[in-house]
Amino acid sequence: MTAVRREDCEARDAADPLAPLREFFEIPDGLTYLAGNSLGPPPLNSVARVLATLRTEWGEGLVRSWEAADWWDKPVTLGGRIAPLVGARPDEVLVGDSTSVNLFKVAVAAMRLRADRRVIVTDRDNFPTDLYMLEAAAELAGGAEVRRVDDAVALADCLDESVALVELTHVDYRLSRRHPMDEITRAVHDAGALMVWDLAHSVGAVPVALDDCDVDFAVGSTYKYLNGGPGSPAFVFAAARLHEAMRQPLVGWHGHVRPFAFEPDYAPAPGIRQFACGSPPIVAFASLEGSLEVWQHVEPPALFAKGQALCDLFIELVEPCLAAGGLELVSPRDPARRGSHVALRHPGALAIVDELARRGVLGDFRAPDIIRLGIAPLYLRYVDIWDAAAAIRAVLASDVPGAGS
Amino acid sequence: MTAVRREDCEARDAADPLAPLREFFEIPDGLTYLAGNSLGPPPLNSVARVLATLRTEWGEGLVRSWEAADWWDKPVTLGGRIAPLVGARPDEVLVGDSTSVNLFKVAVAAMRLRADRRVIVTDRDNFPTDLYMLEAAAELAGGAEVRRVDDAVALADCLDESVALVELTHVDYRLSRRHPMDEITRAVHDAGALMVWDLAHSVGAVPVALDDCDVDFAVGSTYKYLNGGPGSPAFVFAAARLHEAMRQPLVGWHGHVRPFAFEPDYAPAPGIRQFACGSPPIVAFASLEGSLEVWQHVEPPALFAKGQALCDLFIELVEPCLAAGGLELVSPRDPARRGSHVALRHPGALAIVDELARRGVLGDFRAPDIIRLGIAPLYLRYVDIWDAAAAIRAVLASDVPGAGS
Repeated sequence: MTAVRREDCEARDAADPLAPLREFFEIPDGLTYLAGNSLGPPPLNSVARVLATLRTEWGEGLVRSWEAADWWDKPVTLGGRIAPLVGARPDEVLVGDSTSVNLFKVAVAAMRLRADRRVIVTDRDNFPTDLYMLEAAAELAGGAEVRRVDDAVALADCLDESVALVELTHVDYRLSRRHPMDEITRAVHDAGALMVWDLAHSVGAVPVALDDCDVDFAVGSTYKYLNGGPGSPAFVFAAARLHEAMRQPLVGWHGHVRPFAFEPDYAPAPGIRQFACGSPPIVAFASLEGSLEVWQHVEPPALFAKGQALCDLFIELVEPCLAAGGLELVSPRDPARRGSHVALRHPGALAIVDELARRGVLGDFRAPDIIRLGIAPLYLRYVDIWDAAAAIRAVLASDVPGAGS
Repeated sequence: MTAVRREDCEARDAADPLAPLREFFEIPDGLTYLAGNSLGPPPLNSVARVLATLRTEWGEGLVRSWEAADWWDKPVTLGGRIAPLVGARPDEVLVGDSTSVNLFKVAVAAMRLRADRRVIVTDRDNFPTDLYMLEAAAELAGGAEVRRVDDAVALADCLDESVALVELTHVDYRLSRRHPMDEITRAVHDAGALMVWDLAHSVGAVPVALDDCDVDFAVGSTYKYLNGGPGSPAFVFAAARLHEAMRQPLVGWHGHVRPFAFEPDYAPAPGIRQFACGSPPIVAFASLEGSLEVWQHVEPPALFAKGQALCDLFIELVEPCLAAGGLELVSPRDPARRGSHVALRHPGALAIVDELARRGVLGDFRAPDIIRLGIAPLYLRYVDIWDAAAAIRAVLASDVPGAGS
């Protein structure tokens, strides 16, 4: 057993200047919620913002609210609020559509900026929608080829003058491995290609410095560590230096330079606004807006440091099971190479996740044998980590079918 | 002046079996809302459904609600509820993304089904996003050509064996002209092409019989006559007979046959589900779901008949201004050729719309000279029509700058 006691964790919580942030949320009693990397819990601000949008903006303002309540500009204003969390300028981020659709937009936009190159490079273990959308973009952008590589060495090997763009997910959705954004982006640029990062498991979880790393395009979701709500609209980043030349393919009227002139021919709005397309779901935006209000009370570096401290504590607390419980830690131990979730491998992973849920610890299972536990520092306490680890130790020591070592 | 008195309208309201439907809404006192063709008002059911989704499904169920609250299936279940309003089978309609994005999906899907043909035909006066998206689909589907025609005669003239698809908006967004869906679809099929209808200004407003007309694809919005909320997700229709062969281009993981197997290669889900893409905005879906509950209490034919009666009454009541007030009726007089809004042309249209708003009648202006008034029979009363027409007569008789005849 580990030397860290539950009282120690209580003491750390009591001394934690970030602890009050949990009060923005109402986590159900008795639940240790370690699935916030899949879907964050509702901030109270989200509920309040949605109600105000429904009752006042929509109910009283009606169609006038497109102007009067600034609905028209929400894609840009909400993007501007996400920008500091990813190291971008406010005018480089736009909210709207899904991560999948935004991937298509940036992949085609990047292909058009490198029209003489016909190869897209990505990671074999990338999230499926990334793989599918890159294939779609490759096919529709004139029959390009998608090369899937195994690791960073293979990536370096295949960076030649045929490569138009490289797309990677910054933090791996299963194992929580974090790519070195600066190094890879530099290598990609050295080869004359453009770099697209998927920040789904990074934003709100680990430091991201898009502009400092000279990244070209990025996409990300808002329903994980940003707690924007189930399926809340995604965001897209395009570096300001590309705004003039870039042309994204899904040219809807919200991305037109003069939408209310109803012109028969498309002309892109200046800047990031070009990435807007059709009418965005304002009620879902309201939920996201409420969740982003929470972030105005947060110093991201301190929060991310707490997240890694929680991950480290969790690994320390399950260490005995790694030796004796048949459990394998598949996430990096180095916080600088890890996201904010921890993945454990066990042949009885599914049964363990189910039993943990019965004991009030909610994580998730990824086939065939991964237990994935999201460590969201905005609302998780040190005692939550202690309780989760204790539950894992207890389950592994019990005779849960398929879960015993 | 017209012979119809306000008391006559009150009497018609009192005798109207559809009048209680207005109780599903809370229209602000003193407001005659004639912009429901732009954004419908909030049904009380929408507010209730959103609250339940926020507090119970999201707040208590958290990530488990993707299964437990059937979030995963909402695109299909909500589509199934819209289906009867457009004359489709429940398994032919899916909700998600915006009308713009869905237009791209169906246009490319149609091009792929007619891969030996390289022309897309549409209407010069189509809604701008339709025109832009068709150009985008034409470019990305291998360099097709978009031909814009002036009218039905020109359409018939250009239907040859080069045409892959024809896309038209069923009810014109400005003038409220309604195309004969059956005739046009038949002519397009006779030429071997596929037919795509945009139902933005039709669904919930006029009868639509997609399957009876043998339509191939359709898209439509849910925030106008369906009152789903600002920017609420759009829908897409694909005829069941095409499900096996069709391939839509925006291949996200929600449209995969086995999404939770996280397979590296895309394989489409069977049926309309293929049109799903990324994670959909569940909070916006909840608002739409509440609004669709209202439609379960509606007999569409009776409702649409009331809508046309209201339009006819409105035209009758403004008739004096047509003769003397410098006002021109640019919508069809024949209800069978008209949508559920009425458009009036006047050189002082903008000033008139502004002055009407000051008098509590909210319509909208479309440059350069169109007054557009939406007649949504779900919540509008005969007296609302009387009041609106009276306000128009009064404004035209006054010395509003720019509005006098």
